[in-house]
Amino acid sequence: MTQMLSALQGIITPEMEKVAREEGRDPEFIRAGVAKGTIVIPANKNHTNLSPVGFGAGLRTKVNANIGTSKGMESEEVHIEKLKVLLEAGSDAVMDLSTGGNLDHLRRTIIANSPVPVGTVPIYQAAVEAREQHGNIVAMTADELFDVIERHARDGVDFITVHCGVTLQTVKRLKEQGRVTDIVSRGGSFLTGWMLHHGLENPLYEQFDRLLDICLEYDVTLSLGDGLRPGCLADATDRAQVQELLILGELVDRSRSRGVQAMVEGPGHVPLDQVAVNVKLQKSLCRGAPFYVLGPLVTDVAPGYDHISAAIGGAVAAMAGADFLCYVTPAEHLGLPTPEDVREGVMAARLAAHAGDVAKQIPGARQWDDDISRARKNLDWEKQIELALDPELARRRHRERNPEGPGKQCSMCGEYCAIRLVEEFLNKR
Amino acid sequence: MTQMLSALQGIITPEMEKVAREEGRDPEFIRAGVAKGTIVIPANKNHTNLSPVGFGAGLRTKVNANIGTSKGMESEEVHIEKLKVLLEAGSDAVMDLSTGGNLDHLRRTIIANSPVPVGTVPIYQAAVEAREQHGNIVAMTADELFDVIERHARDGVDFITVHCGVTLQTVKRLKEQGRVTDIVSRGGSFLTGWMLHHGLENPLYEQFDRLLDICLEYDVTLSLGDGLRPGCLADATDRAQVQELLILGELVDRSRSRGVQAMVEGPGHVPLDQVAVNVKLQKSLCRGAPFYVLGPLVTDVAPGYDHISAAIGGAVAAMAGADFLCYVTPAEHLGLPTPEDVREGVMAARLAAHAGDVAKQIPGARQWDDDISRARKNLDWEKQIELALDPELARRRHRERNPEGPGKQCSMCGEYCAIRLVEEFLNKR
Repeated sequence: MTQMLSALQGIITPEMEKVAREEGRDPEFIRAGVAKGTIVIPANKNHTNLSPVGFGAGLRTKVNANIGTSKGMESEEVHIEKLKVLLEAGSDAVMDLSTGGNLDHLRRTIIANSPVPVGTVPIYQAAVEAREQHGNIVAMTADELFDVIERHARDGVDFITVHCGVTLQTVKRLKEQGRVTDIVSRGGSFLTGWMLHHGLENPLYEQFDRLLDICLEYDVTLSLGDGLRPGCLADATDRAQVQELLILGELVDRSRSRGVQAMVEGPGHVPLDQVAVNVKLQKSLCRGAPFYVLGPLVTDVAPGYDHISAAIGGAVAAMAGADFLCYVTPAEHLGLPTPEDVREGVMAARLAAHAGDVAKQIPGARQWDDDISRARKNLDWEKQIELALDPELARRRHRERNPEGPGKQCSMCGEYCAIRLVEEFLNKR
Repeated sequence: MTQMLSALQGIITPEMEKVAREEGRDPEFIRAGVAKGTIVIPANKNHTNLSPVGFGAGLRTKVNANIGTSKGMESEEVHIEKLKVLLEAGSDAVMDLSTGGNLDHLRRTIIANSPVPVGTVPIYQAAVEAREQHGNIVAMTADELFDVIERHARDGVDFITVHCGVTLQTVKRLKEQGRVTDIVSRGGSFLTGWMLHHGLENPLYEQFDRLLDICLEYDVTLSLGDGLRPGCLADATDRAQVQELLILGELVDRSRSRGVQAMVEGPGHVPLDQVAVNVKLQKSLCRGAPFYVLGPLVTDVAPGYDHISAAIGGAVAAMAGADFLCYVTPAEHLGLPTPEDVREGVMAARLAAHAGDVAKQIPGARQWDDDISRARKNLDWEKQIELALDPELARRRHRERNPEGPGKQCSMCGEYCAIRLVEEFLNKR
């Protein structure tokens, strides 16, 4: 039985219990959310070392980190180091997007070493194998694609991105629309190429029940991918994107009706004034399914700073109701991230998620700010650093700038420390 | 005559002409804004090497960088290096907040080397001198404070932060309110200490016309400081903060009635859902005076990442109508920024300002995004880097990750580049 089927039968699973503890919520609150589909707990039966995490309405906004090898950059050592870095940095999930090296082996290593939910995009591997075996991505057969999906499910992948909404209808709408950057999703582009080449419907859409069969067997959560996500501000919230979202909404219904957990992926590049609109639209069209956003980036002009661009969009999205933020690293639009980029990306996304949680009043979220602020008021440097989002970095930077050690003031204002002055003048009277 | 008095007489000054050219606006639009007080052009008559900048309604959101020496960290060389860095990074203004070393000399050096408007907080120097001469900050006399202000004005400072709204009434309201971090503004704390010690009203409030006399003589723009700005989320938008803002609104009226340009400073630490509220409130209470916000930081937990926290708050503030963002560096809450921190702070603030400008539809803002997106679509790496917010960083990071030089794809997706695939499949049919 999947988490959802259990929930529908009124059963509170150990996974729901654990999520309830982590979130400070009643287990019944979690069960009801899973039954309704507004909360998902991606927990593949074969991911035995998983510590389950919940995503969705009323829960803390979560963060995902993507890592992956590429052809020519296939080092397993670096790949595993990135996993270690993202876990230490506090990511709530990881996606293995590898396209270089021994993909089955890499994925199994990630799952074996990840206590957080693991996601994949099976079509990447299907495309790589089609190229290897047939010399061409479009030569991939539907059976081969489903075979890869089943392999991922069997290995213990907790959630898979499947671009089921890239249909003949969506592609037609894309052509009518006209875009600056057309399709920037790799999975979306593979499928579009395949469909145009064969003149056939997307097998992930046409054989959606086959996908659900696999998900039911292993309790894989669907992450309904946005193959038509905008790749620049000019393409945001256009008819192609919204057409795909309409279809994804219908597929959420179909998933739920069979007891398969589903979340929906979202943009992308979005002007700041359209971010909340996108979240509200998804929540409405997809009947409150958890929303997993990539960024969104609020400007196209910031390569090298896209983690900041994404933090702006992610915070506003989280405030509006997004449940799950995919990190963006400083290497976005420039190349593969280094382990240090991974670390920075996770921290920026966690900051954004927390800012959103404070704003949408997730129970307990503000307590963290109040605690560190009291430590700041008391000039208690040890406590401030301990409570920091990234204690290691805060400690290092503070020491560099205050080599004499933490005194009763920092080097920023020195003896003109406002906190100390007011303490003297205001509070001692 | 000040810019405002000229504008009121229907005169379009060379400074207004220059701002109009920079902003792609009609000179009459600028004149009307300056006359009304919704636009300020801080341009001290004695800042002879100034290239004037406009701040306010309908104009591009601007960015300020604070630099300053501290006792024990007084290197003039580092101070000037920071000026160089912030100018290269594209800051629209600079504030010299020095409290260590020869303050008159440092300030004059900054003004002589700055083509952008220079701001100061004269009470810092008044406090340092009071300590040196009388052994105690509270021993400062009102005449000594006004003497420092006049010295700054004479030297060519374009805008001064003056905490005129920290009055006996405001401090009483602060006591009634009760706060986690009381006062975190240095100027606010000096004045509060002074007032409590002497039992007298704030001279900057009581002798406001004396301040206006100085401003009129040199055309110094007032930046009405928020001494009661919240130092943590818990204190945001409280009665003490709003009481001060009410008084600042009245002082905006008084400034305008005498032809003195005035803007208003804002928080600070503000939960994300209160950022737009703060901007709308300021615009309403201060009759559309330009709003100069410090951050705002949307969480208290991120020392080491406060430039990102400020970028989130700053972007949302700019979208809601804030006109001028004071940068926050990664060193905030930890110590004095290094030149590299200054650079990162300016870039993060410029990113936020631009995201806000796109959202509030400042004419021409989106063109930048559209241009870089077209270069991205065309896999034109040179053009993308040239158009980047920080071309130097983008080039370095791209080269590091793509040592073989810019090909038709980046190392991120390698041969599975979505843009190239769609180009092949979709557009060539």
